[in-house]
Formats: sequence, structure tokens, C-alpha cells
Amino acid sequence: MSTETKAISVNEKVVPLVQQLIARAGDLRCEVKRGDAGETIIDAGASARGSLEAGRIITEICLGGLGSVQLGAGSFLDRWPFTLTVATSQPVLSCLGSQYAGWQLTHGEGETGYFSMGSGPGRALAGLEELYKDIGYRDQADAAVLVLETDTPPPEPLVRKIAQSCGVAPDRLTLIITPTTSLAGSVQIVGRVVEVALHKAHVLEFDLSHIVEGIGTAPLAPPHPDFITAMGRTNDAVIYGGRIVLHVNGSAAKARELAERLPSSTADDYGKPFAEIFREYDGDFYKIDPMLFSPAEVQIVSLESGETFHGGGIDPKLIDASFG
Amino acid sequence: MSTETKAISVNEKVVPLVQQLIARAGDLRCEVKRGDAGETIIDAGASARGSLEAGRIITEICLGGLGSVQLGAGSFLDRWPFTLTVATSQPVLSCLGSQYAGWQLTHGEGETGYFSMGSGPGRALAGLEELYKDIGYRDQADAAVLVLETDTPPPEPLVRKIAQSCGVAPDRLTLIITPTTSLAGSVQIVGRVVEVALHKAHVLEFDLSHIVEGIGTAPLAPPHPDFITAMGRTNDAVIYGGRIVLHVNGSAAKARELAERLPSSTADDYGKPFAEIFREYDGDFYKIDPMLFSPAEVQIVSLESGETFHGGGIDPKLIDASFG
Amino acid sequence: MSTETKAISVNEKVVPLVQQLIARAGDLRCEVKRGDAGETIIDAGASARGSLEAGRIITEICLGGLGSVQLGAGSFLDRWPFTLTVATSQPVLSCLGSQYAGWQLTHGEGETGYFSMGSGPGRALAGLEELYKDIGYRDQADAAVLVLETDTPPPEPLVRKIAQSCGVAPDRLTLIITPTTSLAGSVQIVGRVVEVALHKAHVLEFDLSHIVEGIGTAPLAPPHPDFITAMGRTNDAVIYGGRIVLHVNGSAAKARELAERLPSSTADDYGKPFAEIFREYDGDFYKIDPMLFSPAEVQIVSLESGETFHGGGIDPKLIDASFG
Repeated sequence: MSTETKAISVNEKVVPLVQQLIARAGDLRCEVKRGDAGETIIDAGASARGSLEAGRIITEICLGGLGSVQLGAGSFLDRWPFTLTVATSQPVLSCLGSQYAGWQLTHGEGETGYFSMGSGPGRALAGLEELYKDIGYRDQADAAVLVLETDTPPPEPLVRKIAQSCGVAPDRLTLIITPTTSLAGSVQIVGRVVEVALHKAHVLEFDLSHIVEGIGTAPLAPPHPDFITAMGRTNDAVIYGGRIVLHVNGSAAKARELAERLPSSTADDYGKPFAEIFREYDGDFYKIDPMLFSPAEVQIVSLESGETFHGGGIDPKLIDASFG
Repeated sequence: MSTETKAISVNEKVVPLVQQLIARAGDLRCEVKRGDAGETIIDAGASARGSLEAGRIITEICLGGLGSVQLGAGSFLDRWPFTLTVATSQPVLSCLGSQYAGWQLTHGEGETGYFSMGSGPGRALAGLEELYKDIGYRDQADAAVLVLETDTPPPEPLVRKIAQSCGVAPDRLTLIITPTTSLAGSVQIVGRVVEVALHKAHVLEFDLSHIVEGIGTAPLAPPHPDFITAMGRTNDAVIYGGRIVLHVNGSAAKARELAERLPSSTADDYGKPFAEIFREYDGDFYKIDPMLFSPAEVQIVSLESGETFHGGGIDPKLIDASFG
Repeated sequence: MSTETKAISVNEKVVPLVQQLIARAGDLRCEVKRGDAGETIIDAGASARGSLEAGRIITEICLGGLGSVQLGAGSFLDRWPFTLTVATSQPVLSCLGSQYAGWQLTHGEGETGYFSMGSGPGRALAGLEELYKDIGYRDQADAAVLVLETDTPPPEPLVRKIAQSCGVAPDRLTLIITPTTSLAGSVQIVGRVVEVALHKAHVLEFDLSHIVEGIGTAPLAPPHPDFITAMGRTNDAVIYGGRIVLHVNGSAAKARELAERLPSSTADDYGKPFAEIFREYDGDFYKIDPMLFSPAEVQIVSLESGETFHGGGIDPKLIDASFG
């Protein structure tokens, strides 16, 4: 015991969670296998069916073991009684340093090329994203875990490249596969209700080092076999049904401004189910107003002044329109 | 690690839960003793007072260690703020293969005879019920756990018969005693909110292999010292206050039909507190319309079409009438 | 295994929780250090920032390891969606025998004197309070844990005196520091929603041995840097936003009477934010009607009659006035 705070390793923190996922693979309907480069692949929704509980554990893995994810009853939406609640006392590290899907994993090009977004603690070993400079965090660990929102594991050369970027041997790399259309995928995307708020706060140039606590809740979105509809619903759960509280340091004026600017309703594209917006832009993600990716309702608690600033509000009708 | 999924043993899964119940017996007000045949008896509400938390753990034992049971705030019923929420990614195995109270334990006849319904994982070792053929599951384990809704442990010859049916030595059999009128009993019956839906789906000849996920919530029923009133309240919690979501495979048409036929409101006897119905039939359980045993409100999510079909609705007035 | 129930030691029960708090000190923003007498000091909000999750664990420590504390979504207050839910099957032991802040820790006098209220399991080793005779409980353990609502650890001579009163060596004493204004402090005070009900029941001379179960929920109060405002909000969370259920033995008449007399609304001072009341009495705590310290809404379940008696009701407007 000492007063010294050991640096937090998000990859070390998730080891027990990954072990749990593997040990319970049978009842969580996941498939665990070795890939060609020796990596561990946990299929939580591609060939395997996966499960909501696998999704819950994977969300805690995405958070770098620094947050809790609970399925509960108690939604404010009468037609959708079950919710996911995420709480983290390390919002920047867990949500941006680990959970954010910021690593573009690509191999080859065109029709035969491979593309997937990587999220989770492995990102913090590679540290390839600009974001890591902004938050001043890098992890050191001898094992890496990444979560891929895809239905296809990456090809062997890409796996070797990922391992190398993480500074681990390929057989110390674990890849968790959760397609957007899967049960686990639906949970792990809705479980980004705090992360999107952190990311938008960063885009709004709010000082991230001032964000102390993050709690969020959003309704459990029903999965859909169509990728765009599935993606739409999980985003709508957050954009039109998500509620968060952030406790922040710094001036109350900045906190108030954040509460005004953070809710999804500040975006030009606000007001239609996400899948509809996406289709209107011909599936070009980058044409969507990035301000849309945020919870519907926010409370920013200024620790300096003790004030709570409220912004936005949930929209039950749009959730109904989206969830069907 | 391998791709092979080891068969799930519900009796093995519950070992840590049973150990926890025994280790915490003191603060959970349970009594642990050896019976005459060497069996372990955990009294959670007969001579011992028991507790709500014991009931919560026992419900997870009933579910074969394949589901979570949480007490929370967030009821939709203003007068009854606390609820029980059950979630399982193995609804058929946990609810029907283990939790369903389907094993009639009898010894002798008439006034001096013994009768109790057995539920929990031990049933899956004995496999005496037709249901096990329907769901295609049998357990293999060297220890068995049964939960008995009774205030009297079974006589020695019956204990030996139970052990024999389970294929275990009597000293490897654990019997958990939870009278309907007890605190633990009240929890473990309300905790059947998903199970009754599964059972009714089976009666309605819905293909059980298509039921993938089950989540349910129902208000915590206040215990009552009178057996019939206690039984009535726990049933009413589900019948008039229970809400579930099932994620199912197969055609959307079948899912829609299930949503229409599953809620308790489809039963002829719907509309009065359960104890009243029971008394009107002179206590003959088998005269009650079996369609009544189901949650008030259901959502069936078709994984094939992505549609959610809603059926039924909770009835706060009937909960008030029942809970008093 | 035997039928004998080992005496419950609240100080032994909390050992794993204290270990967890120390092991996770880094991500929970706590500081662990040795004090001058060799005691372990866990700073959860004085020099260290602390966290809500630290507060949650500390509340479970306060409860002597005999209760669960959960942060969840599902408040009945639309503007304050997140709540703390406390459940204990040993309400008297956990809330009065351990959690109640009843030990006045003083050293010296006047300006240079030290004063802090001690709560948590260590109290049950010292047993200096009259209350311990009333509840008939004393702990025996070779390590002691106390929670102090202060921003300053006690001076060395006082630490030695505390250790001596607890009958442990100073290096077997753990002091957890949670100022009222801190994140952890805000949680651990709101987490007294069941405890205040138990304490008031005692003042009302309700037979404590008849209280069997306690469950409570209250909104998470936003911290405030001003001590009085912070104290006000955490008290208001309980007084105007707290809801509890107690299951009690004994006559239904006594249960009914308790439901009538227990809610905070029976107090003369009811109806204004607590900080306002406190200021009106010039900060003299002892002038406040002690009947005010109780949940807004109570349900008393008589196990003897099966009746539930409702009393009081939450007051969203006063919560808004207090939380700002």
C-alpha cells in the first residue's frame, strides 16, 4: 500500500471480464476460437448467435473495465421498459481512451478489401489516433483486446499488423466480434450513451480533463437483421432516448454552455429516425451533422458552483417510430 | 479453449450460488442442517425466517445459474416502487429445464401423506417430466439441488427416492425450503415472471427452440401469512403487474401470434385477484384457466423481421386490490 | 456446516469491500496512506477527488457488509433520473449497529479542537453508544473500520484513542474520509435512506427487534462545494425524495402506527429545503425537529397481518428547489 497511484492499464483491467466471457461462452452463445495468426477470436454474433448478456460484458470490456453496465427495468418510455445503465468514474479514460470506435482497421481495397472499426482497450496500446494526444493517455500491457463491429474477423496479415501496433504477440491479441445486427451488438452500441457525450464534448472543445463522472441510461433497442435499420435503432436509443449526467470541474459558465450545446437536439439533422437520415445522405456517414451523436437529455453538474444545468429531453415518439 | 461448447450443467452452475447461500446463512436468516438421509436442508422460511436476499439467490438457483435476478427501484406502479427483474440468455434451459415447478414429490397418502412441488436444477437430473423430451435437455452432475415450495422437508424415504431419481448419493442432495408465505418464497415466485411466459408459450405450441432471450420484471409482492392470499399476491404480481420481452427466431407471423396469445388477459379468469379466483373454484387449481399464468404485458421481438409485437398491459388497480 | 448461526461480525464482513476500495483506489480517485499512529487512511474526497463509485462501496462498508447499494436509472423524479437503492435483510444491525453516524470523535477544544462524527462498523467494537444496549449487539474483531464525514483525518492521539476503544492496534484501524461536499460523501449520505427510518423508528419506540427487512431508494443528490448546501441536498434527497419499505413483525396496529408517524412530513419543520431550515436555526442542528430525518414515503408491511400501510409521499418540487 502506498500513496502512489499506479497507472491504470485498461487492457489489464479487462482480463477478468474476457476470462468470464470465455468461461461462459457456452451459455452466452459465443464461440471462442484461434485465428490463423494465433489470435483469440470471440464470436459474439457472427456465426454464433451471441446474447444480450454477452453484449453487457463486452460493453464493460469496451469501457476498459472502468465502468459498470446494467440491464434494468425502469425506463421512462412506457412502451420500452428495459434500459441499459452505464456508470463510470473514469469517463475520459473508459469512454475515449477505450470504448470509442476510433481505430480504422483496413486491409486491401475495393470489393475484396476488409474494413472494420475497432473499439476497446487495444486502441490505447496502439495509440494511433490523434485523440490519445488530446487525452494524454497510453496503455502498456502484454495482452490486447479489441472489439470489432463487424461480422467478419480480419484477415491474417491485418491481425499481425494490429498485434504489432499494439506491441503484443499475435497470440496475446483477443478480437471480439459483434455485428451491429446481433443481440450483443445492439447492447454494446446503446452502451455508448456516455461515450458519445464525451466525444461530442471533445468536438465542442470542452476541456476533457474537467469531466469527472459519467452516468447514462438508454432503452434497450430491439435488434434488426438489416444493418442500416439496426444501426439506426441503436443510435436512436441514444439520440432520442438517452439521458446522461456528467459531473465537471471548471467554471460554471463552461458547464452551462456544455449543457446547452451537448444534447442531440442541437444538430441540424435532429428529428427523424437515424436510418432515415442515413438513407437521405445515400449512406454517407460523413454528411450527417456530427452534433447528432449525443444523448437526448443531459445534466451537467458543475462541481465548482454546485449548479446542475439541464439540456435537451427524450422524445418517446421518435423512439416508437424507430423501434417499430 | 476450443470451439466446442461443453454441455451446460444447471446443477454445476448453481454450486457457487448454493455455497454463497450457506456461507451467508447467518445474515440471510436461513438454517442449514443435515437431514436423516444425509441430505443438506437449507431452511429459508419454515422454522427460519429467511429473507428477501435469500429469495433472490434462491431464484438464481432456480434458474440453474443461467439468469440474473435483481431487486431494484423503478416500478411502473406508483404505490409499489420496488421490483424484481429477471434476465436470462438461456430462457428455455433456465426457466423450463430448471425453474419450472414441475416435479410432484409425494409420499404416502391422505392426511399423513406428503406433497410438495419441486423446482430447480435437480429436476433436470431426474428428467421424469414429459417436458424434458420436449426441450431435449438432460443434466449430468454428481450433486443435485431442488427448491421446494413447502414448509416441511420431505420424509427420509422420499429424500432417498429423490436422490435416486437424480442419480446422486443422498448426501449430495441439497433441498431448499421456501414456503409460499415466507419472504424468500414471495421473491422466488414473483421471480417466475419469465418462466410462466415460457411455459404458456409451450402450451400454445410455440416452438421453444425459437426463444432466444427472456427479460421480465414484476413488483415485489408483500408476503401474507395466509397461504392462499400469499399465493394469490405472488401470482398477481406476474399476472397483473408483470412485463416481459422475449427475443424469438422463426417467422414474424408466429411472433405476432405469440404476442397476441401470451398475455394473461387472454384467459377467461382474467380480471380478479388470483386468490378470489382460486376460492371460487374451491381451491381446485386445475379448474383455473391455465392461460391465466402469464405476464400482464409482453413484447415479442422477431429477430427475423426486427419487428416488436406488443400484447396486453399491466393493471395497477388489480395490483392494488391484491396487495392491499 | 451446522445449524448454529455464527455471530455476525460487521468488521469482518467489510474486509473484502475495504480491500476492493484499496485495490481500485487509482481509478476511484482515492488516496491510501498510513497515518502517524500506523492507521490506514483512505481519503475519498478531501485531498483526493474521490468518486461516486467509491461512495457506493463506502456505503456498503457503512452498512457493515450487510446490504447492497446500487446506482440505477428509474427515479420517480423526472428531472433527476438516477437513484441510489439500498437493500438489507439485517436492517437493525447494518443501519443502526454499523451505518448510523453516532460516534462523536473529539480532541481538544475550541478553534484548535477536532470534531467529526464516526459511522460504520468500528462503532460496534467500541460500543460506546447507548444504542448498542438497545439493539443488543457488540462486535468482536481484530480490525476496525470507521467512516468519517470530515475533510480532516483525526490527530494522532485521537486515532490511538479510537483504536483503543475498538480494542485493536492502531495499525489495524482503517479510517475512510468522506467530506459532505465530496462525490463519495453525497452518495454515502443519500445511502442512509433506510438508516434514518430505523433511527426514527427507534425514537418512536417501535420495537427494533421487529424490523426484519429494509429497502429504500432516493435520488442521487448533486454535490455542492458549500458544506451547508451539500448537507442540505443529501438530506433533502431522503426527506423529500426517499421511499422505503420495511417488513415488520409484531401487531398490525403497531405497523400501521409506524407508517403514520414515520414519514418526514410529520415533522414541524417539513416543507422547506433542509439548508434553509438549518440556517433559520442559526446552524444549530439540535433545534431542528428530529422527526424530520426520515424518508418522504414509507410502506410498512406487517408480516403478521399481511397488510401494507402507506404513509407520506415524495415531493418533487422540494427536490427541484433543493437540487437547483
